Amino acid sequence: MFKKVCIIGCGLIGSSIARGIKKNKLARKVVSSNRSNKTNKKVIKLKIVDEASSDTKKIVEGSDLIIISSPLSSYKNIILKIKSYIKNGAILTDVGSVKKNTISLIKKNIPKDISWISSHPIAGTEDSGPESGFSQLFKNKWCILTPSKQSNNKDVKLLKKFWRKLGSRVDVMDEKKHDYILSITSHMPHLIAYNIVNTALKIKKKKDRNIVKYSAGGLRDFTRIAASNPIMWRDIFIQNGENTLKMIDRFIENLIDLKKSIKSKNGKKLEKTFRKTKKIRKEIIEAGQDISKPDFGRK
Amino acid sequence: MFKKVCIIGCGLIGSSIARGIKKNKLARKVVSSNRSNKTNKKVIKLKIVDEASSDTKKIVEGSDLIIISSPLSSYKNIILKIKSYIKNGAILTDVGSVKKNTISLIKKNIPKDISWISSHPIAGTEDSGPESGFSQLFKNKWCILTPSKQSNNKDVKLLKKFWRKLGSRVDVMDEKKHDYILSITSHMPHLIAYNIVNTALKIKKKKDRNIVKYSAGGLRDFTRIAASNPIMWRDIFIQNGENTLKMIDRFIENLIDLKKSIKSKNGKKLEKTFRKTKKIRKEIIEAGQDISKPDFGRK
Repeated sequence: MFKKVCIIGCGLIGSSIARGIKKNKLARKVVSSNRSNKTNKKVIKLKIVDEASSDTKKIVEGSDLIIISSPLSSYKNIILKIKSYIKNGAILTDVGSVKKNTISLIKKNIPKDISWISSHPIAGTEDSGPESGFSQLFKNKWCILTPSKQSNNKDVKLLKKFWRKLGSRVDVMDEKKHDYILSITSHMPHLIAYNIVNTALKIKKKKDRNIVKYSAGGLRDFTRIAASNPIMWRDIFIQNGENTLKMIDRFIENLIDLKKSIKSKNGKKLEKTFRKTKKIRKEIIEAGQDISKPDFGRK
Repeated sequence: MFKKVCIIGCGLIGSSIARGIKKNKLARKVVSSNRSNKTNKKVIKLKIVDEASSDTKKIVEGSDLIIISSPLSSYKNIILKIKSYIKNGAILTDVGSVKKNTISLIKKNIPKDISWISSHPIAGTEDSGPESGFSQLFKNKWCILTPSKQSNNKDVKLLKKFWRKLGSRVDVMDEKKHDYILSITSHMPHLIAYNIVNTALKIKKKKDRNIVKYSAGGLRDFTRIAASNPIMWRDIFIQNGENTLKMIDRFIENLIDLKKSIKSKNGKKLEKTFRKTKKIRKEIIEAGQDISKPDFGRK
């Protein structure tokens, strides 16, 4: 499919892509650039890629597909570094969770003969780093492509095929819609998870083990999401601030409504609200976006 | 251990207790009372209990251990119904998630020669009904006992042993502390899950499948908790209103703090907050209250 694929930032997502490429034989050569030499050594040792170096310019050269999979805040530096070293006609993509900023950054800096098509695989776990990746991460999950005026149609087709080979289902969406939808399905849930765990921690006195001991009552689910990569999520909230701030307001509005129902012991209204939310779980399972086993199949 | 155990309300928790009793041979006979005849027939057909009837008074008679495992709002009716039919010296317990109201209800109504010891197994799934129960539900999970002046010490020991035989670890706590701790580790997380799913649903336009399709970005975890029994949770929030309302205020306070950091693009503060919450996940896994596999081991 490709001669040389270059992955910039071989963390959970990047290393999962690399593993998927190798498993499905989608490229003759997979290389990676990481800032730390420790990571470069690790991805070679784990046989995730064929070559790795902190010299991004050099390693990008000659690649047909370049995938930026590092935190959003690192994009600018990377793009300025590689812009003169990308092969004419190569495809440049990323895996970032927010599109708006990136797209204007590319527009300003990347030559017109590079096919720029942004990607966002809606997949991940709470773990970080190259050792946590696995080739099946994208299986049945959606990957959203956001082509631009700078995308060659043939390349959009090729990139779609690439993600499908990795197991993804592919959708196409413009950046505005992407950033809005993701603020509901991903960014806001993460912020809320961070906030409830943080609220519990603030209440917890030193050496008080109760919050840990009785977390199976519900809190433990939130601690999983709140264990996600802090740098990645810091960048997401800042870059998708506009949508996130609106969602926070809507969330607080609805929470105050629930508060009123609890205060006035309005059982009917509470029950009605809780019945509505049950249905969506079923739809998510039917859409293959979660498993049907109770408690996520945990034992 | 017991001659006859009576379970009032054979739902997820009640039927899991019944299954555990049978599996571990903790009683010669297990009986159950349910309001609907359909449920009574089902629990007999599934061989969960030996006898089942909607005639609660009759079925309670002669039991050494009576376990109320129905929604909190049904307690008053049940207690008024059974109070004259409980055997002298029997143990009466429940599995309710809020203690304060129940304890005053018992105090007013249950004769002094009945040993009243409240229980709360911190275990469950998002499923409801007798078919969803399983004997391993309590394994490694904590069960909190709240004895009262009306509890015979010997019986507290016996009830501890009973829960341990079902796989639980047992703690003793007074009702005030119980209701406070659980509002943090269980009630508030559930309210927040209901609220974020409800907020997403309010935004979702009819026939818009995006929220379902891209839920793997985080929202799906919350839909699991928000699929819990609506009646049970309605009752919990009303009965633990005082603590829940306080927690809502703390939660909103902290969320507004996060909102400010996002608005002012204060990356340092966001990162610091997100780093703190990562640690507690590790502690929960070490305490055996969640599995260590990423993504709850979902595939």
